[in-house]
Amino acid sequence: MSFTPRAVVLLSGGLDSTTVLALAAAEGRHTHALSFGYGQRHAVELECARRQAARLGARAHEVVDLGHVGRLVAAATSLIKASPLAVPKDATPGLGAIPNTYVPARNTLFLAYALAWAEALDASEIWLGVNALDYSGYPDCRPEFIAAFQQLATLATRAGVEGRPITLRTPLLHLSKAQIVRAGHELAVDYADTISCYDPTGSLACGHCDSCTLRRQGFLQAELPDPTRYA
Amino acid sequence: MSFTPRAVVLLSGGLDSTTVLALAAAEGRHTHALSFGYGQRHAVELECARRQAARLGARAHEVVDLGHVGRLVAAATSLIKASPLAVPKDATPGLGAIPNTYVPARNTLFLAYALAWAEALDASEIWLGVNALDYSGYPDCRPEFIAAFQQLATLATRAGVEGRPITLRTPLLHLSKAQIVRAGHELAVDYADTISCYDPTGSLACGHCDSCTLRRQGFLQAELPDPTRYA
Repeated sequence: MSFTPRAVVLLSGGLDSTTVLALAAAEGRHTHALSFGYGQRHAVELECARRQAARLGARAHEVVDLGHVGRLVAAATSLIKASPLAVPKDATPGLGAIPNTYVPARNTLFLAYALAWAEALDASEIWLGVNALDYSGYPDCRPEFIAAFQQLATLATRAGVEGRPITLRTPLLHLSKAQIVRAGHELAVDYADTISCYDPTGSLACGHCDSCTLRRQGFLQAELPDPTRYA
Repeated sequence: MSFTPRAVVLLSGGLDSTTVLALAAAEGRHTHALSFGYGQRHAVELECARRQAARLGARAHEVVDLGHVGRLVAAATSLIKASPLAVPKDATPGLGAIPNTYVPARNTLFLAYALAWAEALDASEIWLGVNALDYSGYPDCRPEFIAAFQQLATLATRAGVEGRPITLRTPLLHLSKAQIVRAGHELAVDYADTISCYDPTGSLACGHCDSCTLRRQGFLQAELPDPTRYA
C-alpha cells in the first residue's frame, strides 16, 4: 500500500504560488489549495486561483473570506481596495524601506489558517511561494520568518507535540524570478492565467507596480514570452 | 502630553480573558477587544464578551467570524458544534494526552489576527489569558508557544523590523485558577457574566467538562463564592 502525502498549498493565483502548486503536484502530493479574499485590489487573482486549482488537480480548494481583517488594516496598507493610500509605481522593488503595499501580518495569518487546515486534514506539509530575492521587501517573506513559523507550528500543534510536525515547504525562497518562471515553464504552468499586479484594471496588469516590475524582468531574464496582458 | 499605550486583548468571554481585560485596563491601557466565532459549542460566550468589553471600557470590540475554519476543523475537535465528537466529562484536566477539545492552531490563528490589528492600530501590546498551570493541556497555551509567537511577531511585522516590536502580555501564564479568580475579584470583575463551559446548555454550564472542573476548583480554593449557573 502506498501513501500519498497531503499538502496544503497557499494559492493566491499569482505567478509564484501557481508555480508552487505545480511543483507540489509534480512531487506527487495530494494538494489542498487555500486562497484568501481580504479586500485586495487584485481580487481578480482569486478567479485565476480557482482555475489553476482545477487545472493542477487540487483535491480541494478553499477560498476564505478575510474581509473583516482587510477592513481593520485598510488604513495601513495600499493593497486593500478600501485604503486611502496609493500603490507605488515605477519604484525599485526590494530596495529601501518596506513599501506601503505591505499588509500587516498577512503571511502569519495565511499560515495560521493553513496550519489549522493541515492539522485537521492530517497533512504533513504546507507549501508556499515566498521569495526573498526578487521580492517587495516584506518582512514576512524572509527566511528568518519562515524558520520562526516552522518552530511555532511544531510547538503549537498536537501534530508537533506528538512527533509529526507539519513542515513548511518554500521551494522558491532563494530563486530569482527568472528561475521561478523557468521552473514553471518546464511544468507547463499556464502563466497567461495568473495575475501578479497589485493594482490591476479588471484582469489587465498596470505594468508599473513592484509586482509587475519583478514579473516583467523575470520573463525577460528567463528569455521566455511574457503572456501578461497590460492595461 | 501623556501617551496611553494601546493594547489588543483577546477576549473569549470566559473567566481568564475577562480577567486579562480588567488587568490591562487597570494598567492604564486603551484596550481593543477581539473575539472570534468559530462555530464553538459555547458561542454564548460571545454575548458575555460583548457586555464585558463595554463594562471594562474597551475602546473597540471586534467579533470576527471564523466559521469557515471552524467547518474545516470540525472533524478534529469536539469543541465545534458541528463536530461528531463529544466533549469529555469528569476527566482530570491537564493530565494525560491532549484532549479532543483541542482546536487545531486556534491560538496561532487568534494571535495572527490580533497581530494584524495591533500593527494597523499602532498598538504596542497584545494581551491574552493563556494559562499553563490549571489548563486543559493544549500545546498552544504553553510558555514555549508564547515565546515562539513573540519571536515570530517581531520578525513578521514592519513594527518589529523598525524596532517597535509588538509585545505579548500573558499575566495569567503561571497563576493558578484560584490566583486568577482572586486577582479578578480585587478588580471587581463580574464573574457571573462570564462563561467557561465547553458544552453549555444555553447560558448554563455543564459542570463536568475540563473547563468547568478547573473553574469550580478555582473558586473553591480562592474561598470566593462561585457565581456560575450550572444546568
